[in-house]
Amino acid sequence: MKAVEGGVCAPRGFRASGVTAEIKKIGSTKKDCALVVSDAPATVAGTFTKNLLKAPPITWSQGVCHRGAARAIFLNSGNANACTGTRGLEDAQATAEHVALENKLAVDEVCVLSTGVIGVPLPLDRILKGVALASASLSTNGGADAAQAIMTTDLVPKECAYEVPLSNGSCRIGAMAKGSGMIAPDMATMFCILTTDASIAAADLQPILRNAVEASFNRICVDNDMSTSDAVICLANGQSGTPAIAPGTADAKIFAAAVQSVCIEMARALVKDGEGATKFVEIEVEGAANAAGAKQIARAIAQSQLCKTAFFGQDANWGRIACAAGYAGVHFEPNNLSIWLQGILVVSEGLPTTYEEAEAAAGMKQPEINIRVRVGDGPGVAKFWTCDLSHDYVSINADYRS
Amino acid sequence: MKAVEGGVCAPRGFRASGVTAEIKKIGSTKKDCALVVSDAPATVAGTFTKNLLKAPPITWSQGVCHRGAARAIFLNSGNANACTGTRGLEDAQATAEHVALENKLAVDEVCVLSTGVIGVPLPLDRILKGVALASASLSTNGGADAAQAIMTTDLVPKECAYEVPLSNGSCRIGAMAKGSGMIAPDMATMFCILTTDASIAAADLQPILRNAVEASFNRICVDNDMSTSDAVICLANGQSGTPAIAPGTADAKIFAAAVQSVCIEMARALVKDGEGATKFVEIEVEGAANAAGAKQIARAIAQSQLCKTAFFGQDANWGRIACAAGYAGVHFEPNNLSIWLQGILVVSEGLPTTYEEAEAAAGMKQPEINIRVRVGDGPGVAKFWTCDLSHDYVSINADYRS
Repeated sequence: MKAVEGGVCAPRGFRASGVTAEIKKIGSTKKDCALVVSDAPATVAGTFTKNLLKAPPITWSQGVCHRGAARAIFLNSGNANACTGTRGLEDAQATAEHVALENKLAVDEVCVLSTGVIGVPLPLDRILKGVALASASLSTNGGADAAQAIMTTDLVPKECAYEVPLSNGSCRIGAMAKGSGMIAPDMATMFCILTTDASIAAADLQPILRNAVEASFNRICVDNDMSTSDAVICLANGQSGTPAIAPGTADAKIFAAAVQSVCIEMARALVKDGEGATKFVEIEVEGAANAAGAKQIARAIAQSQLCKTAFFGQDANWGRIACAAGYAGVHFEPNNLSIWLQGILVVSEGLPTTYEEAEAAAGMKQPEINIRVRVGDGPGVAKFWTCDLSHDYVSINADYRS
Repeated sequence: MKAVEGGVCAPRGFRASGVTAEIKKIGSTKKDCALVVSDAPATVAGTFTKNLLKAPPITWSQGVCHRGAARAIFLNSGNANACTGTRGLEDAQATAEHVALENKLAVDEVCVLSTGVIGVPLPLDRILKGVALASASLSTNGGADAAQAIMTTDLVPKECAYEVPLSNGSCRIGAMAKGSGMIAPDMATMFCILTTDASIAAADLQPILRNAVEASFNRICVDNDMSTSDAVICLANGQSGTPAIAPGTADAKIFAAAVQSVCIEMARALVKDGEGATKFVEIEVEGAANAAGAKQIARAIAQSQLCKTAFFGQDANWGRIACAAGYAGVHFEPNNLSIWLQGILVVSEGLPTTYEEAEAAAGMKQPEINIRVRVGDGPGVAKFWTCDLSHDYVSINADYRS
């Protein structure tokens, strides 16, 4: 698997754009509307937030993904079109209709996604202006602009693309993602758009995407708040010319591994750009009775405010890590607990070792921190990614609407 | 029920003390050891942390409470004696033995509790010095000193006492509590010591205490982290001279209501003194299918980092409250959602009302904030108490060990 340029436009037969439609604020010059279009019919799979208060665009796009075929995804930042009731659904549909009209597509082939402030009706006139502009700006070089346009509190755009060798030729997978707050590890927790020129039936793509999301976006947290608008959508247009990927084949395994790898890269990028984050922290749990238990322990540590503030303080405070493992709700013998901070064994068989505090402290000063926790001899392992909780997180979220 | 002075010493037959034994730091002049002693045999009930990594003093005190009789509780701050293994349990027992020796009690009548840094062995020589000093300093006026001595990051001591009229005379209930960080609503999440001169069997006291804790300490959060050391213990010595309280009687109801009221007062005091807190927030959820569902929704809002930073920012950001309700894991119809901020209806039937933003913003500037959420027409109601997430919380916890 080789990295290539172009983001969502790297696979053959995809164009994209990112434009300014003053959605964030009248007079704003920031890009806020993105469009991704497949030149050929494409299959589609998606995973969506489990929040009861699904935003209307989510409801709309779930319908598209359920039918399994799509050609376009329109995204806006600045307004989530959430808690907007019947009007919100009408606005989502009007947006999709306009995308279809401008690009000569069927309306039921158009996904729409919105992110931003909750509870404010979509400024539909400006959105439709954004649709027209974005449609006119589509190009095979538009991936980076699209990745820019979906940013909210994100500091950096997030995109990647890879060439994946299959048994007969190669396909490409491109991706872009946004998200840096309201990140909780339960279903897709942000936007990630994947494109691929592989040929694969929607019914075969959906489980591959679901598994990839489970191993990536469901393993990260910034602040444990699950958004009303999150979605991961993958379009597959078959333009690579490689044969259709059938389930159970070697190619299906290679493709699934590639999708997972791309999702993990994007998920890690979200955490690194977490609101106010100064540290990227990888939590590895091993020795649990099963993988679910290992994930639950890793998640408790990743979500702990006390662990996250200690990471911010660069404090080798393993007591808080042990404490969070202890309340995760998964049984283990406290006497079997071992903890490594940056490879340094600080707790062995439930008791602190004679590690050098200065050495551990030096390790915590690194921008990327590895925490390894062993809870027994079971086969269950899991990884989870989190960031620290800093003053900037508080500032960003205390002042978000003002 | 009438408020009286004296804290844990208000009920007849209790003495207490708080002394300095340099546990927090050599040379420290802060009080760090507290002792509460009943002059007469007393029954005892307790609830304890469910953290797997129970600190040795918790294990010791659970044994005492299980047997149902106790005379003394020794508490130290500055060191949690947690993750200290066999040595930790030996140190807890040695502490109890010294308390028994100094006060001519049986060792199995002595509870010990420790709070502070995790993973550092108890400085036993200084603890035993603390036991001797605290024993020598016992007095019927020692309640306030004891409440001082158990503080860690607490800014104010927390104590209260009430006279409770029963059918034949009256009894008193006194209490002290500590805790301001590592506060999560799952079992007792801090220390609270209750004393009463009521006469009640341990087997009857335990369910009364458990119910009171469920309605108070299990309804609060500061940072969602469940400590390794939390405990609520109630001693009842019968010195009021009132008849034994039998289950199912009018007196049992009055007494249980009084215990619950005292626990709620102490629980609210913990939240008000939450690390870095600038706001005290009461969440009321109604209309859920049942009380458990209402509690779960209230808890999701109370724990949400995004809600808590919005409270800090004095932002009437009801979208985050709606969002947290939506991911709480309890089914309700989004169209039935109503939200009141400080009595102002901001969301009705799932949609924002035409409330005045300035009026809502003014409400959020108050030090105490009431959030009312209705999710339907069901009978389930619950209250939950939380505080905001401020810069000071981050500072306090980034620097805790240094």
